[in-house]
Amino acid sequence: MYIAILAGGVGTRLWPASRESLPKQFSDVTGVGRTMIQATVDRLEGIASLSEIYVITGQRYRQLVLDQLPGIPPDNIIVEPHGRNTGPAIGLACAHIHRRDPNAIIGLLHADHIIQDADAYRSVLCQAELAAQSDYLTVLGIAPTFAHTGYGYIKSAGEPLPPSAHLPVYAVERFLEKPDQATAEGFLADGGYYWNAGNFICRVERMLAEFKKQLPAVHAGLAAIESSLGSSQAEAVLAQVWEELPSISIDHGVMEHAQRVAVVPLLAGWNDVGSWDALEEILPVDEDGNCIIQGETVLVESRGTIVSGGKRLIALVGVEDLVVVDSGDALLVGHKNQIQKIKAVVERLRSADRADLL
Amino acid sequence: MYIAILAGGVGTRLWPASRESLPKQFSDVTGVGRTMIQATVDRLEGIASLSEIYVITGQRYRQLVLDQLPGIPPDNIIVEPHGRNTGPAIGLACAHIHRRDPNAIIGLLHADHIIQDADAYRSVLCQAELAAQSDYLTVLGIAPTFAHTGYGYIKSAGEPLPPSAHLPVYAVERFLEKPDQATAEGFLADGGYYWNAGNFICRVERMLAEFKKQLPAVHAGLAAIESSLGSSQAEAVLAQVWEELPSISIDHGVMEHAQRVAVVPLLAGWNDVGSWDALEEILPVDEDGNCIIQGETVLVESRGTIVSGGKRLIALVGVEDLVVVDSGDALLVGHKNQIQKIKAVVERLRSADRADLL
Repeated sequence: MYIAILAGGVGTRLWPASRESLPKQFSDVTGVGRTMIQATVDRLEGIASLSEIYVITGQRYRQLVLDQLPGIPPDNIIVEPHGRNTGPAIGLACAHIHRRDPNAIIGLLHADHIIQDADAYRSVLCQAELAAQSDYLTVLGIAPTFAHTGYGYIKSAGEPLPPSAHLPVYAVERFLEKPDQATAEGFLADGGYYWNAGNFICRVERMLAEFKKQLPAVHAGLAAIESSLGSSQAEAVLAQVWEELPSISIDHGVMEHAQRVAVVPLLAGWNDVGSWDALEEILPVDEDGNCIIQGETVLVESRGTIVSGGKRLIALVGVEDLVVVDSGDALLVGHKNQIQKIKAVVERLRSADRADLL
Repeated sequence: MYIAILAGGVGTRLWPASRESLPKQFSDVTGVGRTMIQATVDRLEGIASLSEIYVITGQRYRQLVLDQLPGIPPDNIIVEPHGRNTGPAIGLACAHIHRRDPNAIIGLLHADHIIQDADAYRSVLCQAELAAQSDYLTVLGIAPTFAHTGYGYIKSAGEPLPPSAHLPVYAVERFLEKPDQATAEGFLADGGYYWNAGNFICRVERMLAEFKKQLPAVHAGLAAIESSLGSSQAEAVLAQVWEELPSISIDHGVMEHAQRVAVVPLLAGWNDVGSWDALEEILPVDEDGNCIIQGETVLVESRGTIVSGGKRLIALVGVEDLVVVDSGDALLVGHKNQIQKIKAVVERLRSADRADLL
């Protein structure tokens, strides 16, 4: 299986640990000693060799990928001229891999997802590969742990598809937009619904065929790019095509209207670390509900806090439900329930031309 | 007037800005660009020349005093072998100054008090000097701004004493221990009560006479020390006397039972910065009640906080009534109403042998 890792995101919801200059996929957000993109590659051992792993990112992050993933061939690092959402990014990855191997099966994954149970994850990928061999566009369906309103959902259809090797695979009945709270609760009550976290496994020809059917102009551009690969024109063609591409997600552009889509449920401690408070869902907490991600701390009568320290000692005294992050050049102290307002901090820093902190 | 500045305190209530290795009097706690002891000397301009200013401190802090107060003659830095509370420290200062000038008037002040109105303060000191010339043991009485239960009080007696130059001086009826809340409220309602902040102005002979009357053994030791000053025996005599001295406060040991004691009210924005939350009483706060002592901050929907930053940006998001202090090697985040529990942090660091952070 070939793997394409999407690594172009510029997440600031984990500011100050995630920056435009160093997005979370290039940071060791959880203090495991590896950055998120390194951990993403680590857990693919046995699934794909390093020479079969591609990374799609922006020019600004190419060197970071080279530095952090020295085993990946430099030619496997695909640079998007600009971000155009997941549709064109995935199309570009498909064009590169199709050029190399038209019969390839490709796994489209993200560089900033956490998986706690790597063995379970690999089993699910193998099962998804089997479904892709049967020409399914296969999506990993995250088994929902609560009525989350921040993800789109996948509704599976009835009985598992035959033939099922070890794990069940279901036909996808439909993709659903982010629901409201009541709808999300209904999904969980009914069962058979999964979070769509944008991880796809399919034959690369199958995906390109869907582009041709649903996004013909994009497909034409991708075909031109593919033809130019290896030639002296490659860079110019890419730049020209990219200027004219729409910004569109793979979900809206392709998946929602595709036929023969399958879902493989994933129960492996998945988390996309969309915000600081997400970390306490997957990391250990002490008896007072404190989640110490990393760093040296002294906690006095403090409860429900999430702390990511740096080189300094962090002492908490009589506080509750705080997020405290020391990134070296910036400190964040926020209330857990209002931590989404970090974006206001980032906006103010941008207004103040503090690019050094963005 | 001679001045003796008590600078031997090891305050950790302002941890992490105040350390055993660098107590608050040697720090710029309020971000004014001068340490507290430097500000203490600065505001004595016109009251005492640098050659008439003495500092009493411990051996560990002697070099800090030399570094921070280069204008003070090194011989004016009096080192206590051990801390023995304010009684022996003041006695030792009196012995040194009495040796130099038996007719001296001495002002006994603290290195870690903040005075916002230096002009008013100097006027009060001048008035106190006049009272001292009339042989009063004079104490500065801090005009209380609320029913504080953390200070001893001074009860003044009726009408101002004649002759009053510019400012009133009252006889002291009695010294009162730290009151409970109801008693403190009664003091404020009755009027004529002042906080005792341990600042005394008197003839040095008068103070030594009180030692002789009330603490004859201490006086005998002080007399031995004074006799030895300038001789090769000085250090040995000091060490020997100091071993046998009791640890006793000047209030309990001398002031409470002294006769002919006067109080000069001080209304000059006094604060002894006993804890972080005391700073919002004397520093500006913004419209949301935030007191930014120093440092670069971005505040988003945050109220009632007290922030002392260092070289890092501090971002607060949706928090209330917090104290946030970045001292470089340690970060404190505490609730304002529980900030006295800092001592538990210090105790734990001591148990963990983290002398570097104490």
